[in-house]
Amino acid sequence: MRTCYTGQVCRDHLGQTVTLFGWVHRRRDHGGIIFIDLRDREGLAQIVCDPDEPVSFGVAERLRNEFCVRVVGLVRERPAGTINPELKSGEVEILAREIEILNASVTPPFQLDDENLSETTRLTHRVLDLRRPQMQRNLMLRYRVAIEARKYLDELGFIDIETPMLTKSTPEGARDYLVPSRVNAGQFFALPQSPQLFKQMLMVSGFDRYYQITKCFRDEDLRADRQPEFTQIDCETSFLDEQQIRDIFESMIRTIFQRVQGVELPSPFPVMSWKEAMAKYGSDKPDMRVALAFTDVTDVMKDVDFKVFASAANSEGGRVVALRVPGGAALSRSEIDAYTQFVGIYGARGLAWIKVNEVEKGREGLQAPIVKNLHDAAIAALLERTGAQSGDILFFGADKAKVVNDAIGALRVKIGHSEFGKANGLFTDAWRPLWVVDFPMFEYDEEEQRYTAAHHPFTSPKDGHEDLLETRPQDAVAKAYDMVLNGWEIGGGSVRIHREEVQSKVFRALKIDADEARLKFGFLLDALQYGAPPHGGIAFGLDRIVTMMAGADSIRDVIAFPKTQRAQDLLTHAPSPVDEKQLRELHIRLRNPEAKKAD
Amino acid sequence: MRTCYTGQVCRDHLGQTVTLFGWVHRRRDHGGIIFIDLRDREGLAQIVCDPDEPVSFGVAERLRNEFCVRVVGLVRERPAGTINPELKSGEVEILAREIEILNASVTPPFQLDDENLSETTRLTHRVLDLRRPQMQRNLMLRYRVAIEARKYLDELGFIDIETPMLTKSTPEGARDYLVPSRVNAGQFFALPQSPQLFKQMLMVSGFDRYYQITKCFRDEDLRADRQPEFTQIDCETSFLDEQQIRDIFESMIRTIFQRVQGVELPSPFPVMSWKEAMAKYGSDKPDMRVALAFTDVTDVMKDVDFKVFASAANSEGGRVVALRVPGGAALSRSEIDAYTQFVGIYGARGLAWIKVNEVEKGREGLQAPIVKNLHDAAIAALLERTGAQSGDILFFGADKAKVVNDAIGALRVKIGHSEFGKANGLFTDAWRPLWVVDFPMFEYDEEEQRYTAAHHPFTSPKDGHEDLLETRPQDAVAKAYDMVLNGWEIGGGSVRIHREEVQSKVFRALKIDADEARLKFGFLLDALQYGAPPHGGIAFGLDRIVTMMAGADSIRDVIAFPKTQRAQDLLTHAPSPVDEKQLRELHIRLRNPEAKKAD
Repeated sequence: MRTCYTGQVCRDHLGQTVTLFGWVHRRRDHGGIIFIDLRDREGLAQIVCDPDEPVSFGVAERLRNEFCVRVVGLVRERPAGTINPELKSGEVEILAREIEILNASVTPPFQLDDENLSETTRLTHRVLDLRRPQMQRNLMLRYRVAIEARKYLDELGFIDIETPMLTKSTPEGARDYLVPSRVNAGQFFALPQSPQLFKQMLMVSGFDRYYQITKCFRDEDLRADRQPEFTQIDCETSFLDEQQIRDIFESMIRTIFQRVQGVELPSPFPVMSWKEAMAKYGSDKPDMRVALAFTDVTDVMKDVDFKVFASAANSEGGRVVALRVPGGAALSRSEIDAYTQFVGIYGARGLAWIKVNEVEKGREGLQAPIVKNLHDAAIAALLERTGAQSGDILFFGADKAKVVNDAIGALRVKIGHSEFGKANGLFTDAWRPLWVVDFPMFEYDEEEQRYTAAHHPFTSPKDGHEDLLETRPQDAVAKAYDMVLNGWEIGGGSVRIHREEVQSKVFRALKIDADEARLKFGFLLDALQYGAPPHGGIAFGLDRIVTMMAGADSIRDVIAFPKTQRAQDLLTHAPSPVDEKQLRELHIRLRNPEAKKAD
Repeated sequence: MRTCYTGQVCRDHLGQTVTLFGWVHRRRDHGGIIFIDLRDREGLAQIVCDPDEPVSFGVAERLRNEFCVRVVGLVRERPAGTINPELKSGEVEILAREIEILNASVTPPFQLDDENLSETTRLTHRVLDLRRPQMQRNLMLRYRVAIEARKYLDELGFIDIETPMLTKSTPEGARDYLVPSRVNAGQFFALPQSPQLFKQMLMVSGFDRYYQITKCFRDEDLRADRQPEFTQIDCETSFLDEQQIRDIFESMIRTIFQRVQGVELPSPFPVMSWKEAMAKYGSDKPDMRVALAFTDVTDVMKDVDFKVFASAANSEGGRVVALRVPGGAALSRSEIDAYTQFVGIYGARGLAWIKVNEVEKGREGLQAPIVKNLHDAAIAALLERTGAQSGDILFFGADKAKVVNDAIGALRVKIGHSEFGKANGLFTDAWRPLWVVDFPMFEYDEEEQRYTAAHHPFTSPKDGHEDLLETRPQDAVAKAYDMVLNGWEIGGGSVRIHREEVQSKVFRALKIDADEARLKFGFLLDALQYGAPPHGGIAFGLDRIVTMMAGADSIRDVIAFPKTQRAQDLLTHAPSPVDEKQLRELHIRLRNPEAKKAD
């Protein structure tokens, strides 16, 4: 057996003969001596092969990159001047007495330390890509996050209960992955989009505190932070109110950051209503590292001559906001043009702006084509509400609220993260968690002309809002909460409905009639009849949390074997065509068998 | 918040006012006082509702079974004579000051303590079934087993790495569950039968020690101990030999039994070769609680007059064994007839027997119709080899080896577990673990006229057996091992092949040609080229381990939401028909749409 991991050899081992296993990371010949950087999952150590040790030296001469070897050698101090402070083993080296080649390697298709590999190359040769120290660290970080979550939850009496992977398809929400049944011809299982209903049923069963770190599946088109299968830390508890639930899970995240990275997150996390988040940041997951916020000026723009503002301010669901950027008067015309183009991505038809050159001069101190079309009262209100100072710029969004929120919300983040933003103190490089609470119960779906559940249809309304469900659904507020970190939603949850009559009201508000509700969710409605306890929970996106902690570019960098954006595994070549016999057993056939062959 | 779980109230709380949450398990009215057995996941406590406390008494009068309540009350000693030593809370009772009904319950469809519920009833009303104290204990036991496995593995540097659920279909082994791809028309993912290839690739990637507690899927016809989805504790390690690997995982199981149930398993576990297990017990998973073993007498039966014995002894692959049952001469004719019928299930065409009445008299002391057809040498050898004593019975199996092994192996267990066996010291009620090792590399498949992998095609041959792979495959022994406990295989694993040339030899022995091997396992063969380390591992069946520890009848009793033997979820009604639109998106159609409607 090994004495220790290669990456852990250090001064403690001085004078000892150690046995190490690892891979040849690099080999250098220098002054007749062969130096091997030996690598394992914990890091590197320097092996010295001296011609005075002819047995090991002879083997060392045959070593090439990525050979897998066993080394027995003496740990000694590195000569002065060759210490490498970046390695745990950097003060020592191992004089090889014995080297055994456990397995040779053909020449790898790329250098492990090549930083410019395409994703296709990396995923095709994933086995080698995973040898890269960064990927080793990412997956070990992922493990530490998961095991610390488990330890925390275990201490609080949460128990991991496995829920099924072969579940019932419910056409609410995202598209299901389906699994044809062989035994039950013409029928299908669905892979779970989340264990939501099962965890609620476990609460009704009396398990009191549940968690599971489990795969969930959504057959949606993929983006950088989406995978067909992703992992949730899924939790549920009975007999606690919203505040108590949030406290437990805020503490869980704080504990994970402490134990895994030694980072102290703020305590407590700030809490902001959904309404305030949308008003000030145009987003329900604002990046609080950015010191910029919207100022709503809809009311004062209703009667200005500038048509873009006036028409947005007067239209139903329209909104006019200003984004004050301190020091932004220094932005060049081309920078402003680039931002104008940027907000276009989010549907904005332009980007009005005012440079505040000398605030004390009022209108005269402002620079912008639109100033002449704003009356004095509007300008006075603008300067007062935004608190503009000389040297600032004000950007404007005026459109339907959604367009304004998306465009100016994105602009806020873009400016904050820019070189300009960083140089002007508009960005703090730190962890800035936030609870967003008091979400609306429903969102209006213009296309389907009906309300849909903002969180999911099992979310409890705030106390006293039960009666609004059917009378004024747009005003009903939910006991729903998201945990947001630096602009990413890392967790979301709610207190659930535990009374059948409230659940039925929600279904009615969603225009799900009694028969349909029974067909889809009858088992939940049944369960609620038998003394269901008050309960609620949360689900965290493990992939996202780890991506952020690792500082990775993509969740694919914290998943061992991810799919591409075309939902393919380039390593094993999945999905793939299957035998006709398999399809026959499953009672299905291809719609267009030729398409398959042509593919 | 609660003071503690209901089931944990005890003398420590005497004189305290506690807050409890739970369900009304039973309500009794006695002498004007209402007694409530309040239940939560940790157990029961007695709530006393006195008319002198009119507020709580008024609520108590409205309570029915399975109402969910919050109780605030004073903990006091139970009156002498009413102590219940079976409950943790059995010395105390809680005088209710305040009772809040959190949720009422309609009358449950069955009593929770009804022991005679059909499985259909239990699975249809699974939410209530899971409230039963036994089911609560089973799932909490399951959790403790899993978390103790994690803790043990964590301490040894094993890290949990998630492998994909959407994988490539490989037509080796059992039938796959398939998942049609929407993005890649005409192609399919398969749900993993095990993470075997992924964990091997993780070893090649240098992760060194891996584990995962994960779902595996096999679309096979179901038996009592099979489910479409089941859970493995899946482990793999690099740089260790077979003995070192077995030591780690033997210690894991020992640790789990210690920590979860306070049970000390033997140390070390006995080790038996596959050959010996088949010779002595006719099984590769012998139940070592049974003190009975086969005696092989094939050689001495070749020239006896009893045709059944002689023909089995002389035929290729035939076998004749005796099973000596101490004290078995006392078995009645009808008992023997019942055993004869029993072995018929396993294909035996009869059950020869000899009662040993007076062993010192030789042939004269034996009683059985077949004795006259056995010559003196056969009888002498029989008595000597079996060590028969007066009062014993010898049962015989004579047929193809497989029939003999199955039939007499089952008979051995049957007799051991019978009342007779227990009364005669043939059965020890204890945990009897065993390693079965040195499995053959290959089994001959009569139907397909070729060798198949006994474990799986990635299993390493014993050192020195590489050359047998192609010359004498039947003699090649594998570095494969099963952990057997009381007649159940609870884990199985092997040292893997880490050299590409050995892997190619095995594929050739299995008549998988180079093209086919590349098509199916190209990614593994590629991986082995890049300095793959020596590695091996094991997978444990979590469902089985917990079933045994819980003393449950079926693995369905240790799974929260299991499927029936027809692979259906009776609670949520999965699988189910799906919309035509969903099928269209997946590029498939039903073979026989009418069958679906008729179903």
